[in-house]
Amino acid sequence: MDEGATRVSRLLLNCDMGESFGSWTMGLDAEVMPFIDCANIACGFHAGDPGIMRKTVALAVAHGVTIGAHPAYPDLVGFGRRSMACSAEEVRDLLHYQIGALEGICRAQGTRVAYVKPHGALYNDMMADPLTLRAVLEAVAAYDRQLPLMLMATADDSEAQALGRECGVTVWFEAFADRAYDPSGRLVSRRLPGAVHHDPARIVEQALRLARGEALTASDGSQVLLKAQTLCVHGDNDSSVAAVRQIRQALDALVVA
Amino acid sequence: MDEGATRVSRLLLNCDMGESFGSWTMGLDAEVMPFIDCANIACGFHAGDPGIMRKTVALAVAHGVTIGAHPAYPDLVGFGRRSMACSAEEVRDLLHYQIGALEGICRAQGTRVAYVKPHGALYNDMMADPLTLRAVLEAVAAYDRQLPLMLMATADDSEAQALGRECGVTVWFEAFADRAYDPSGRLVSRRLPGAVHHDPARIVEQALRLARGEALTASDGSQVLLKAQTLCVHGDNDSSVAAVRQIRQALDALVVA
Amino acid sequence: MDEGATRVSRLLLNCDMGESFGSWTMGLDAEVMPFIDCANIACGFHAGDPGIMRKTVALAVAHGVTIGAHPAYPDLVGFGRRSMACSAEEVRDLLHYQIGALEGICRAQGTRVAYVKPHGALYNDMMADPLTLRAVLEAVAAYDRQLPLMLMATADDSEAQALGRECGVTVWFEAFADRAYDPSGRLVSRRLPGAVHHDPARIVEQALRLARGEALTASDGSQVLLKAQTLCVHGDNDSSVAAVRQIRQALDALVVA
Amino acid sequence: MDEGATRVSRLLLNCDMGESFGSWTMGLDAEVMPFIDCANIACGFHAGDPGIMRKTVALAVAHGVTIGAHPAYPDLVGFGRRSMACSAEEVRDLLHYQIGALEGICRAQGTRVAYVKPHGALYNDMMADPLTLRAVLEAVAAYDRQLPLMLMATADDSEAQALGRECGVTVWFEAFADRAYDPSGRLVSRRLPGAVHHDPARIVEQALRLARGEALTASDGSQVLLKAQTLCVHGDNDSSVAAVRQIRQALDALVVA
Repeated sequence: MDEGATRVSRLLLNCDMGESFGSWTMGLDAEVMPFIDCANIACGFHAGDPGIMRKTVALAVAHGVTIGAHPAYPDLVGFGRRSMACSAEEVRDLLHYQIGALEGICRAQGTRVAYVKPHGALYNDMMADPLTLRAVLEAVAAYDRQLPLMLMATADDSEAQALGRECGVTVWFEAFADRAYDPSGRLVSRRLPGAVHHDPARIVEQALRLARGEALTASDGSQVLLKAQTLCVHGDNDSSVAAVRQIRQALDALVVA
Repeated sequence: MDEGATRVSRLLLNCDMGESFGSWTMGLDAEVMPFIDCANIACGFHAGDPGIMRKTVALAVAHGVTIGAHPAYPDLVGFGRRSMACSAEEVRDLLHYQIGALEGICRAQGTRVAYVKPHGALYNDMMADPLTLRAVLEAVAAYDRQLPLMLMATADDSEAQALGRECGVTVWFEAFADRAYDPSGRLVSRRLPGAVHHDPARIVEQALRLARGEALTASDGSQVLLKAQTLCVHGDNDSSVAAVRQIRQALDALVVA
Repeated sequence: MDEGATRVSRLLLNCDMGESFGSWTMGLDAEVMPFIDCANIACGFHAGDPGIMRKTVALAVAHGVTIGAHPAYPDLVGFGRRSMACSAEEVRDLLHYQIGALEGICRAQGTRVAYVKPHGALYNDMMADPLTLRAVLEAVAAYDRQLPLMLMATADDSEAQALGRECGVTVWFEAFADRAYDPSGRLVSRRLPGAVHHDPARIVEQALRLARGEALTASDGSQVLLKAQTLCVHGDNDSSVAAVRQIRQALDALVVA
Repeated sequence: MDEGATRVSRLLLNCDMGESFGSWTMGLDAEVMPFIDCANIACGFHAGDPGIMRKTVALAVAHGVTIGAHPAYPDLVGFGRRSMACSAEEVRDLLHYQIGALEGICRAQGTRVAYVKPHGALYNDMMADPLTLRAVLEAVAAYDRQLPLMLMATADDSEAQALGRECGVTVWFEAFADRAYDPSGRLVSRRLPGAVHHDPARIVEQALRLARGEALTASDGSQVLLKAQTLCVHGDNDSSVAAVRQIRQALDALVVA
């Protein structure tokens, strides 16, 4: 994060990027890149290929956006969304391979990988299973202790904090502006009604609450406080890009004021 | 090359390594690693996977062997031996991805990639087509101008030298101790009789001639002088490993004397 | 082709289908399927995966469309558009694998593969190199002599006809309504001006000429006669689907009249 | 099974075959093929490629061995041994694709797929999870109700039998001669001592007991009766091939007597 002068919001916007593959296009990367702070770039295992990665890195560089590695299980057909029974050693190895591959693409453009955020099923497994989280932290630590690892914010992040400290890796927590939370600060399952917010005003309001460090109203009506350094936004389609633009403007106004 | 104290031979021995994949084993890496100077490590596109790469890097580190990236066309079934009609841009991208991926594995073990040698059909295309050679040189230059590129030695290497200078990349030339050369300093095709030397004494003799900077006798009886910084040796089977050991001993004796 | 009662046009419309992959969508398959006779379905090597293939076969069955295998070189990143130096044996093997895989999907839905049309670089190599054409014909013959092979129509198709007869395989020739032809009946390269027709009226006119067995005006103004059993149409985007609908209506009117 | 005249043993020997890939070799297929009845041939997702599959089918045909499809999760690096969270629909699709692909290779050689045995993690998931077993049975039924599905024999196979009947698919149960069983007729985990028998005499004895329909002595000393139509043998190395030969001879002697 070295563009503090222009992007002073404390709540950074991160977005999955570079999820096209070969001749197939996914996501409105060019449209959403101007409004985000951090691009989680796919590394070829669930999406992305060397050419897509080059174009995505170039786009991030052009907009002064920080580049993060977005590694996944080796499952292109399943887009990295199917859990695979990988050992801790396999997880570390596939992280090193993918972070390095993206770093190779970055290096050819004079930039570098600045953080790590696992993708899809690997992300979920990391949040659900301390052994996987430890494997991911160890992998990041062995690669470069300066790289933060992005995790999901929950009401009680003490265990993740402790594990991060033990491994010598900074953890960043991310929250969502368009998702409902349960009282423990976990996302309400998409299978339940009300899990996803569609009203732009509500999405912006939730982003502002998170930016101000205020509690959210959980699905049971209680208050839940999430400490988040970054907000995960989406560039899938026109309406999600519009939401990102509104969030950006609201956060920028907050900072100026 | 920072192990000058113990490996003073001017003719470095390089060998393709890490060409196992998943549950499949290829090559006697552990047996040949003690005798070589430079390990060309497969990067996952023709062979190697993150776990194999980790083990191969660890083996190289344990023996003080310099690590080179051995990138290839994306053709696992064909072991990178089938030419693919890739554009110059595609060649640059796949080099950056693969060099970076190996660098990621190296970095987790406190070491790094020190040179680049393309594999199989990509190597052949680079030697046959100046546009491909330029793409490879540009890719190495963009990644790190300090990394030498390994090419095949021929009687007249002036064009490759010039192209390397233009791109700002050091070129290393490799020769073979077990192959016959034609008068232009190209390898005699394996389809022709006498293309491959099997007599250990003859192989050692050719290695020594190359190390001393002496001309070889070409397939037509003429003399051909190859300037080579490195000799490509093989760890495929017991007899090739035995040959490497003999070459190593002969070269070490040469240096001591 | 067993739906002669409803689709009496002598000029069958064929279209590449099922070219999505995993989470990535390509082509307006559902929109164009109602207007075509023959669906060339990707078999997983350049596009398509088992789930996409199932959905595409179901769509073809629902519209009474004949199913063809659309096999390719193993190059997902390159969408099968990069030539690969495969041996004749490798070409035969990859055809059997891919035709069989699609047949497996078909069989589970009570239908079957009715013809073969190679894709992309494999199609081009087959048209340019008689050895590759022979390998493809031999592969089809070994799999099922009843399956026709789709080739590109040219002014002189006698060699392809002869090779087909020799291998015992029926050859179908396809032409294009939206492409300009040179005097030898080859497509004008896309790199040249005027290679692609964009005017719908002109496209329909060319389709009708081909259906009536009339000569086309080649790029040099001469007349060129192409004997084609089928017309290759495209379902990439709204305008190409609109063109297919217009061609369908014009051909149906021709037949009724 | 149409070679009843020469192979009259009631206990068929099945063996995983065709598990090489590209340039990598695995298994002594040529050595073990003469002694087995049924070859479980890899279909390209965990091992095998179109060329390997062709050679393996040819070898089976040459020895009159029945060919079975050996489909797996799409995990080449992990050799299909890592469980993947696939939906029932994904399981059905990947089975149809792989069975069909092998059938395509078979058909080109005038033979066909005669049964199905899932591989590795897919096999284990099928045995542990009734929903996966149902998906596999439904996939086989939709492809061809004549094909039996090979499952692992246990002391109580009534549920599997019932599910097979419900889906209209014959189930074959396989047992192991070289593995210890627990009282429920499940394999003793390889992590426990005594899980694998190494004494050839004991292996042959267990094969004979299974062939005669006699109970085995379980790991706790109790008797466990396994009804098995087939015995799974291994062609990994010289000693396993030697064991297969001995089992073959013992079973043949049993039948003759």
